[in-house]
Amino acid sequence: MSKILNNLIIQLTKLPGIGWKSAQRICFFILKTKKSEIDELIHAIQLAKSKLSFCPICFNYTENYMCEICSDNKRNHTQLCIVEDASDIITIERSAIFKGLYHVLGGVLSPIDNIGPEKLRIKELIERINKNKIQEIIIATNPTREGEATAYYLLKLLKQYNIKITRIAKGLPIGSDLDLADEMTISEAFEGRQEL
Amino acid sequence: MSKILNNLIIQLTKLPGIGWKSAQRICFFILKTKKSEIDELIHAIQLAKSKLSFCPICFNYTENYMCEICSDNKRNHTQLCIVEDASDIITIERSAIFKGLYHVLGGVLSPIDNIGPEKLRIKELIERINKNKIQEIIIATNPTREGEATAYYLLKLLKQYNIKITRIAKGLPIGSDLDLADEMTISEAFEGRQEL
Repeated sequence: MSKILNNLIIQLTKLPGIGWKSAQRICFFILKTKKSEIDELIHAIQLAKSKLSFCPICFNYTENYMCEICSDNKRNHTQLCIVEDASDIITIERSAIFKGLYHVLGGVLSPIDNIGPEKLRIKELIERINKNKIQEIIIATNPTREGEATAYYLLKLLKQYNIKITRIAKGLPIGSDLDLADEMTISEAFEGRQEL
Repeated sequence: MSKILNNLIIQLTKLPGIGWKSAQRICFFILKTKKSEIDELIHAIQLAKSKLSFCPICFNYTENYMCEICSDNKRNHTQLCIVEDASDIITIERSAIFKGLYHVLGGVLSPIDNIGPEKLRIKELIERINKNKIQEIIIATNPTREGEATAYYLLKLLKQYNIKITRIAKGLPIGSDLDLADEMTISEAFEGRQEL
């Protein structure tokens, strides 16, 4: 195989979720597609790498000094949703259910990977709580072992403040099937049951 | 969402097999990854777009004048494998089963898409057959409706030459399960059965 072709496929397999077959497919798509369209893709990547930085308040990615969520006066500045990564913000924003502000931890506690509280943006969270009138903190870390441990750590840390602390609900995803759910999810769905 | 971020995700969804969720994942991977590594990816794309052209013999992609398969004297120049796209060559080469040369049609016959024989590299195939001593032509178009129609068209066209014409076998893929195979595949597997 041409070295240039082979190298492009190898570079593409470094992207998350892209195996050799997908990389091969994308590689030939790139070869077939008009140069102007591929230049647009490259420009979008370069712009994202050069122009985006962290919002100093919530650590979301932003092209301005402060992100558009933190600088939006129409949002509820007394509600704080704690997420693992900035990508979680996009996912939550697409649901349009939450109108408060975010705080990006930048990961989760993981002793195996040597990630303790000092490697997450917890100091910055405490500073925010001390400086602002926060009424509710919603912990939206993932329902994984590390996400749960991080949620529990935050709960212990934050209960000294006079703030309502909540955790997003765990249960059956909409459109799913009881038959296909694992036991942990079923247990959580029963424990978290709500009166109708 | 930041416009730059949104635009990058939209650009990424244009790639084949990449939906919004995958694009979002790749976008944040790009943001988190070192600039030098992303520059390598961009360079690989730009190199592929600028340095690769079609081999004038088989229409594979090549960074030289002739592709490395056509210019390899150790390969069997009397065997010709006809494929739809250049990407099929990579797939066949990975199996290392075939040691002849290729001919890339550049598509398949598809009346709905207004693709007749004149839009495929069939004239070039005939020229190759007239100029060279070809002993066997293996038709390796996909086992789809269009691929089969193209194979049948080629068979009719080529039977005037004194060349053995074969078609790659259809049947059950290795590691698959009879239970999960469709009726067409089962039929082909029975029709193409071989004595042991």
